[in-house]
Amino acid sequence: MKKLKRSARLVEMTQYLLNRPHTLISLTAFADRYQSAKSSISEDLAIIKEVFEEEGIGQLQTLAGAAGGVRFIPRLPNDKALEIILKVCRELEQPERVLPGGYLYMTDMLGMPSLLGDVGRIFATAFADRQIDVIMTVETKGIPLAYAAAACLNLPVVIVRRDNKVTEGSAVSINYVSGSNKRIQTMSLARRALKEQSRVLIIDDFMKAGGTVQGMMDLLHEFNATVAGVGVFVESGEIGTEDRLLEDYVSLAKLTAVDLKTKQTTIVPGNYFQS
Amino acid sequence: MKKLKRSARLVEMTQYLLNRPHTLISLTAFADRYQSAKSSISEDLAIIKEVFEEEGIGQLQTLAGAAGGVRFIPRLPNDKALEIILKVCRELEQPERVLPGGYLYMTDMLGMPSLLGDVGRIFATAFADRQIDVIMTVETKGIPLAYAAAACLNLPVVIVRRDNKVTEGSAVSINYVSGSNKRIQTMSLARRALKEQSRVLIIDDFMKAGGTVQGMMDLLHEFNATVAGVGVFVESGEIGTEDRLLEDYVSLAKLTAVDLKTKQTTIVPGNYFQS
Repeated sequence: MKKLKRSARLVEMTQYLLNRPHTLISLTAFADRYQSAKSSISEDLAIIKEVFEEEGIGQLQTLAGAAGGVRFIPRLPNDKALEIILKVCRELEQPERVLPGGYLYMTDMLGMPSLLGDVGRIFATAFADRQIDVIMTVETKGIPLAYAAAACLNLPVVIVRRDNKVTEGSAVSINYVSGSNKRIQTMSLARRALKEQSRVLIIDDFMKAGGTVQGMMDLLHEFNATVAGVGVFVESGEIGTEDRLLEDYVSLAKLTAVDLKTKQTTIVPGNYFQS
Repeated sequence: MKKLKRSARLVEMTQYLLNRPHTLISLTAFADRYQSAKSSISEDLAIIKEVFEEEGIGQLQTLAGAAGGVRFIPRLPNDKALEIILKVCRELEQPERVLPGGYLYMTDMLGMPSLLGDVGRIFATAFADRQIDVIMTVETKGIPLAYAAAACLNLPVVIVRRDNKVTEGSAVSINYVSGSNKRIQTMSLARRALKEQSRVLIIDDFMKAGGTVQGMMDLLHEFNATVAGVGVFVESGEIGTEDRLLEDYVSLAKLTAVDLKTKQTTIVPGNYFQS
């Protein structure tokens, strides 16, 4: 790269950091990249750090020492996150979203890249300080959420399939009972998709009793992997606590009531905002 | 937002633009946001534009006049794109990726957010100048690619399902014949997922004869929508041109030979790099 003026360097460093979340970059690497003294690089980083923190973009962690450097941790402040989720709740409450069986149509919202970017940052904030190796979801609607969080956390994604596709090689399948309608279903994951001992963050779009998430946890046991966290976009509060299959999870929104006759629903921010 | 110094403003404007690709932002909006004169904003934008273009980040389009402003168009230069795809080809040629039936295991690569970001930028560059309203893919493995392109193009994604799920409402289903193995299959899309007259970019991970893509095109007819482009990550060159169901598509890589005995494959850059 040709030598840049400070103003141009700030632009380049900003995009470089934003594109490499949760990645340690040494001062030496920056100094080499921009053919500049480490002292100048440190001054630049101080400016970027202040803007990122003041404007709620994220944190710029500085690690001292020989193995030191700087790491960008995307974080969305709680007030901004709540503002976004309140908008989501209002949108989800529209009567035309109520489907037979008390389901909510939200596929369109899961198709909007800017909303997904925001939701990914909220999940990334919620789980920023956990040790995680990989994010897991089950097809189909959890996939965009898993990738949105993965982009912010710089983690790979594995997708659990509801069938066993030829293009995946040998796979482990389990049966699980969907908690809400008690049907036996199958899910499977390719043998080579997940290393043993992995620490896994489970992400899904909707949780009723938690049978699907519980199924993913059972699948993880087969791989000797452990659950590092569970995040769901919307949880249904229509399930009594005693019927809920798991306790430790983060939800961003909560469906508290559905009236199938009037198509009125009430959706409130989830447990992430109660802590 | 509090008034920032120029250096801090450059950092903030850079992240603001990067997070809003293909979005027109007026000079007035920037001047208000930063409480600065439009002349200062214009100078800042000139610096950002130069860095973005020199470093291959993308283009900063300036539109003059009352409705004018600035728009960030992510673009990955051809030489950088080719470098990335050549690495992908070498990785995909590893013998342990060959699965029964001549399929290639590439799910792990489709799970890596940094590679997806790059591939999304390549698709976004290939289709940057087409009029597109929405990106369409079919579950499951095309989904991360579709979202990666959508994030760069600032477009919504619709996912065609291989079955008709209760949580989608009324849906249109079609039967199609998979071009390579001649099996009849079903795909469906929720009625409310796609507006009539939409211009649609189809993205998928793998294409043999093109039966699945052709199925998506048939589905689009049912919605009175039109195809604005077709992009596939890897195409199989084992299909003769006469058996190929469509001609106008962009591929990033091409599988030219699979030897099931020796597990040797040859993968080369796709037709995107031949034009």
